Amino acid sequence: MLLDKSIPFTFLFRKIRREAMLVFLFANVVVLAKYFFHLRYLTIPIAIPTLLGTCISLLLAFRTNQAYDRWWEARIIWGAIVNDSRSLIRQLQMFLPVTPNQQMIIHAFVQRQCAWCFVLGDSLRGHEVERRLHEFLTPATVESILATDNRPNALMLEHGLAVGQLYRTGQLSDYQMVQISTTLNTLTDSMGRCERIKNTPFPRTYTFNLQLFIYLFAAILPFCFEADLYYLDVPLVTLISCAFLLLEKSAVQLQDPFENQPTDTPMTSIARTIEINLKTMTDYKEIPPKLLPYDYYTL
Amino acid sequence: MLLDKSIPFTFLFRKIRREAMLVFLFANVVVLAKYFFHLRYLTIPIAIPTLLGTCISLLLAFRTNQAYDRWWEARIIWGAIVNDSRSLIRQLQMFLPVTPNQQMIIHAFVQRQCAWCFVLGDSLRGHEVERRLHEFLTPATVESILATDNRPNALMLEHGLAVGQLYRTGQLSDYQMVQISTTLNTLTDSMGRCERIKNTPFPRTYTFNLQLFIYLFAAILPFCFEADLYYLDVPLVTLISCAFLLLEKSAVQLQDPFENQPTDTPMTSIARTIEINLKTMTDYKEIPPKLLPYDYYTL
Amino acid sequence: MLLDKSIPFTFLFRKIRREAMLVFLFANVVVLAKYFFHLRYLTIPIAIPTLLGTCISLLLAFRTNQAYDRWWEARIIWGAIVNDSRSLIRQLQMFLPVTPNQQMIIHAFVQRQCAWCFVLGDSLRGHEVERRLHEFLTPATVESILATDNRPNALMLEHGLAVGQLYRTGQLSDYQMVQISTTLNTLTDSMGRCERIKNTPFPRTYTFNLQLFIYLFAAILPFCFEADLYYLDVPLVTLISCAFLLLEKSAVQLQDPFENQPTDTPMTSIARTIEINLKTMTDYKEIPPKLLPYDYYTL
Amino acid sequence: MLLDKSIPFTFLFRKIRREAMLVFLFANVVVLAKYFFHLRYLTIPIAIPTLLGTCISLLLAFRTNQAYDRWWEARIIWGAIVNDSRSLIRQLQMFLPVTPNQQMIIHAFVQRQCAWCFVLGDSLRGHEVERRLHEFLTPATVESILATDNRPNALMLEHGLAVGQLYRTGQLSDYQMVQISTTLNTLTDSMGRCERIKNTPFPRTYTFNLQLFIYLFAAILPFCFEADLYYLDVPLVTLISCAFLLLEKSAVQLQDPFENQPTDTPMTSIARTIEINLKTMTDYKEIPPKLLPYDYYTL
Amino acid sequence: MLLDKSIPFTFLFRKIRREAMLVFLFANVVVLAKYFFHLRYLTIPIAIPTLLGTCISLLLAFRTNQAYDRWWEARIIWGAIVNDSRSLIRQLQMFLPVTPNQQMIIHAFVQRQCAWCFVLGDSLRGHEVERRLHEFLTPATVESILATDNRPNALMLEHGLAVGQLYRTGQLSDYQMVQISTTLNTLTDSMGRCERIKNTPFPRTYTFNLQLFIYLFAAILPFCFEADLYYLDVPLVTLISCAFLLLEKSAVQLQDPFENQPTDTPMTSIARTIEINLKTMTDYKEIPPKLLPYDYYTL
Repeated sequence: MLLDKSIPFTFLFRKIRREAMLVFLFANVVVLAKYFFHLRYLTIPIAIPTLLGTCISLLLAFRTNQAYDRWWEARIIWGAIVNDSRSLIRQLQMFLPVTPNQQMIIHAFVQRQCAWCFVLGDSLRGHEVERRLHEFLTPATVESILATDNRPNALMLEHGLAVGQLYRTGQLSDYQMVQISTTLNTLTDSMGRCERIKNTPFPRTYTFNLQLFIYLFAAILPFCFEADLYYLDVPLVTLISCAFLLLEKSAVQLQDPFENQPTDTPMTSIARTIEINLKTMTDYKEIPPKLLPYDYYTL
Repeated sequence: MLLDKSIPFTFLFRKIRREAMLVFLFANVVVLAKYFFHLRYLTIPIAIPTLLGTCISLLLAFRTNQAYDRWWEARIIWGAIVNDSRSLIRQLQMFLPVTPNQQMIIHAFVQRQCAWCFVLGDSLRGHEVERRLHEFLTPATVESILATDNRPNALMLEHGLAVGQLYRTGQLSDYQMVQISTTLNTLTDSMGRCERIKNTPFPRTYTFNLQLFIYLFAAILPFCFEADLYYLDVPLVTLISCAFLLLEKSAVQLQDPFENQPTDTPMTSIARTIEINLKTMTDYKEIPPKLLPYDYYTL
Repeated sequence: MLLDKSIPFTFLFRKIRREAMLVFLFANVVVLAKYFFHLRYLTIPIAIPTLLGTCISLLLAFRTNQAYDRWWEARIIWGAIVNDSRSLIRQLQMFLPVTPNQQMIIHAFVQRQCAWCFVLGDSLRGHEVERRLHEFLTPATVESILATDNRPNALMLEHGLAVGQLYRTGQLSDYQMVQISTTLNTLTDSMGRCERIKNTPFPRTYTFNLQLFIYLFAAILPFCFEADLYYLDVPLVTLISCAFLLLEKSAVQLQDPFENQPTDTPMTSIARTIEINLKTMTDYKEIPPKLLPYDYYTL
Repeated sequence: MLLDKSIPFTFLFRKIRREAMLVFLFANVVVLAKYFFHLRYLTIPIAIPTLLGTCISLLLAFRTNQAYDRWWEARIIWGAIVNDSRSLIRQLQMFLPVTPNQQMIIHAFVQRQCAWCFVLGDSLRGHEVERRLHEFLTPATVESILATDNRPNALMLEHGLAVGQLYRTGQLSDYQMVQISTTLNTLTDSMGRCERIKNTPFPRTYTFNLQLFIYLFAAILPFCFEADLYYLDVPLVTLISCAFLLLEKSAVQLQDPFENQPTDTPMTSIARTIEINLKTMTDYKEIPPKLLPYDYYTL
Repeated sequence: MLLDKSIPFTFLFRKIRREAMLVFLFANVVVLAKYFFHLRYLTIPIAIPTLLGTCISLLLAFRTNQAYDRWWEARIIWGAIVNDSRSLIRQLQMFLPVTPNQQMIIHAFVQRQCAWCFVLGDSLRGHEVERRLHEFLTPATVESILATDNRPNALMLEHGLAVGQLYRTGQLSDYQMVQISTTLNTLTDSMGRCERIKNTPFPRTYTFNLQLFIYLFAAILPFCFEADLYYLDVPLVTLISCAFLLLEKSAVQLQDPFENQPTDTPMTSIARTIEINLKTMTDYKEIPPKLLPYDYYTL
């Protein structure tokens, strides 16, 4: 997540370097072609590229909006994970009978829940998760988790089996058990929604259409100036096309929130916040500190 | 679902071939009519087609947005199916008493759930489902399923009856049974939402209006150029109209996500993912591999 | 619901005949006034009607979107009715004890549920419902239903009383009864949402404003052409204004989905689908066939 | 709620009378200033006000959309109140044991629910509610309700206490009582959502910005005409600005749906519909008639 | 929350003072550069800045809409807090047995719930909460709450533990306890949603892109006027750019609703309303008065 600080120039323009170069060359080719093939008498009314520009603006505005919606949905999902993690532990504290074992049982859930949060974030980003798992779980559990293809789902199943056991040993009533099962379902849903966003690329045809319009715009614009002003045509075409491309790339960055980029949903920080919250709620001795942000973003 | 790879040219333009030809001929007719009937003195201000173009752009932007919403809703539904399938099996594992039969009962649900996922996808695409059913169910069950008109619904009813039996034999308590029934309701809802999208074509009047505006635009534009430049008029009109049509066709492709096209919701891959997840959760010996994507899309 | 087929010309233009005539006369009046009162020197810049046109386009785009949302909501509600009808019957099959009476009880619910679906559709369209009721219910019940002011609500109450009786005779447990009551609540909600759409006309002030803008546009446009070309002014003004009006009327058609028009939500077909589904689920001997669509639409 | 009938002219324009006058004077001042201070050589390109106009159109389109959303949300809330009122009574009829008292108990709930609906509507509109309360409740109850600051909330609490009593006297089971409590929560939510809309004025800065843009537009437009045509400048500027203002005022009317205006949500009519529905369901002898609409609206 | 009153000029323009100055200087630099470097022959068509302006307008319209959505979501959350607070207390009144202790127990919940509302608001605004806590809770509780990092969450946990105790001492049944736990979950969700809005700054790249477009617009516009009119160029560029900036700043103000600004969600007033409601419901002797609004806003 980008913080509310100034962002380095390179971060913003790195992504359009290649396209900017392409548009620049393209503009040169068109302007020179116009000059050498004597196409000057082809005065296309300026209204034509303006119309294309309006269409591009509209598509970009909607594009930006859809990207924002994906980004915001990802953030909402992780907000829900925070809430449901807290609710899960509070429910256990309310439901479990006050026995000498109570805290031990709850701590096992806390560890597993923290592991789940970190591992979900790391899996979405394609990171290794073994180190994280060892931080929270016993070596035997870690091994069995690593043997599965979907680790967060395996952890959720462990949660389920542990609740099932509490129920069978009479520590949870029928109704309480089902209630906790509902909370686990909600967490499963959040996991599935993250996977959906991760695994569904934005329709490529839309990207293609937008770029087609931008190149069409860049090809027609030079024919609208009455005089052949190389120094006017090329910079203007390049600048405006690049501004459009920059908007498009910003949307692209935002729409994929689990790609280990500065614009990501700050999953690791959120997981740490959850860890701090849960450990405070359950009287842990050692509470880890908050994660410090990077230069201009958090992860 | 289109992957994040380059898409063959033919895929993009195949759909507008017929319309592009039509617009090209139409532009020729208009330009020639203008020439032969001496309508040159009819200088319509360029602002008129620009205005039409703005209106077309707006309608296209909203059209694109609505198509995207349908496509995204279809994806959300299948994401929910993933979540609810996992939750259904986890609930059974939590609720059922640990008896020698437990695994056998759960495996029957896993088989039926996998069958349901595949059959739902295949039915929506209008494919045969018999082979799929045989993959997961006994011949007797397959036959009774095939005798009904709505196969996924029949499978869901089988689920329901099996749960009812578990309840009547005392393996599920009142409350647990109802809880699983709620999960089945959610799956029924997802099925119904898919059918809704499949069976509700986008309002044809909208398509008609858009094409009316595009042809009006193509008819007026040639009258706005002061000189009679055949080589300018026809290509410009054709290019811009085709760009508009391309946008419209992209929206059309996206808005019907169950038509056995590359832009479909990847239902078969998702069903396979569910199969892998469920079989891993319930200690199957043989886990099938993931489906490989096609050239530039998955199904 | 319009099918994905070509639509007769008359259906599309019948609605704007009156307005088109009005705009045509209006354009004539303005153009002639301009000619006879020597207002030619009043050259209003073309940018002014363009601006009005942009504003009209925007309002129309949003208008179209809101109409689409209403239409889609109506379709979603009827999709939910399909799902909840299936769930209601599946719940009864799961919950009711296997007694000789079981099927008879369930069949009574199936009959009533089918009646409810058909009667809801017919009431929304303002049709007579007596014939429908007789198709599914005993004469005594029909009479008592017809005596109330809101027939679908009366049928829902019958459902409720029947469930209450099953509960009091011990055939449904406390919890199961409440669960079915929840399904009835959802069906009540769907009914209420249909009534809301039916009884809430789209704000008339919006329609008025749009038409004001379109007539303002039609009044100003002729003053922007430099030459007095009757054959240019009148057709252009008429064509573009009519295109705008056509868009508006299409939105109007779509926004009222329970008016017995081809653009309606196909409530009768959906009710028949529900009937087929429910009767297949409960082993009826005679399953009615699907409804055939009309020429280019279903109802 | 405005009916689908023609609306008196005065209703539409009363709201912009003051602003229209202001804009007219303003246009005169600008045009005269331009004339007397010889600012004629200041030919601002027409594209500048066009650009402002486009921006105004966009803001107005979104403004209109947001107002419509508020208006539609208010209608949805009252639709939900209809549904939940019916469900509440149906639940009681299903749950309560068949005793001689049953009908008396249910009638007490019906009276209170009707009172709640009417009183909620009247409170939102700032009306007196005492007369209404006397229509449905005993004098003692009325007095205690009037002593509180939030009358609908006090009525809801009465509902709750009555349910609590039914539970403590064993007429409702644990589970049934909680189910009814859920319905009461939903009604509380609807009440809270109405209060939210009532108590949250639309952000004033938006209104301010829009008016700033409109006045800026009105100030720049006269400088774009080449000739000094008083009779052209002033009417055009006034007409277009007023059209924009009219759009804005229509949005304002719609966004505040509880202000005792013709555009209000028809809360009194809906409350009467609920009264008729509930009384029919519970075999009242006297059913009140539907409320007749006013000239072109209902309240 | 801004009231529906006129707003001081300084409040509106304070925020863009710096940028307005910057744009003014920038416009001067561009206009002077154009003059001194004889770039007059560079007549860029006015359509280019118009196109940029259209794009800026579109981005601003969507920006405004997204800001409004955040602001409205914040208001919805606090509306939900009002509803759930009332429901929590009503549930307790319905569920708890009528014992001499009942009122004492409920009053403890009322105090804690009021504390939670005030503390949540104050924490989001970054205020001290100690004074508030002392207002409602015993010194011992206050101390333990202050020791945690997330005070509202600690209060919610206190609620949970108190409910757990009521359950273990048999004053709440299994089912009732879980029902109240659901209400606590909803309140936890509202808290988490507030934290999400607070901790997620709007994507900075969007702000950057918008400002880039505005400065590009301001740089190109002066080159479109044919004559070098310093007194025309500079004010026009400054005015229009500032109008755009004003729109952007209004959006920024609105999108961060927990920053102790006049545009904030009025959390303190709402918390006081909740306090009044809850205390009236539970027969407190002393009901605090409503909070008076500030000059043109409430907090």
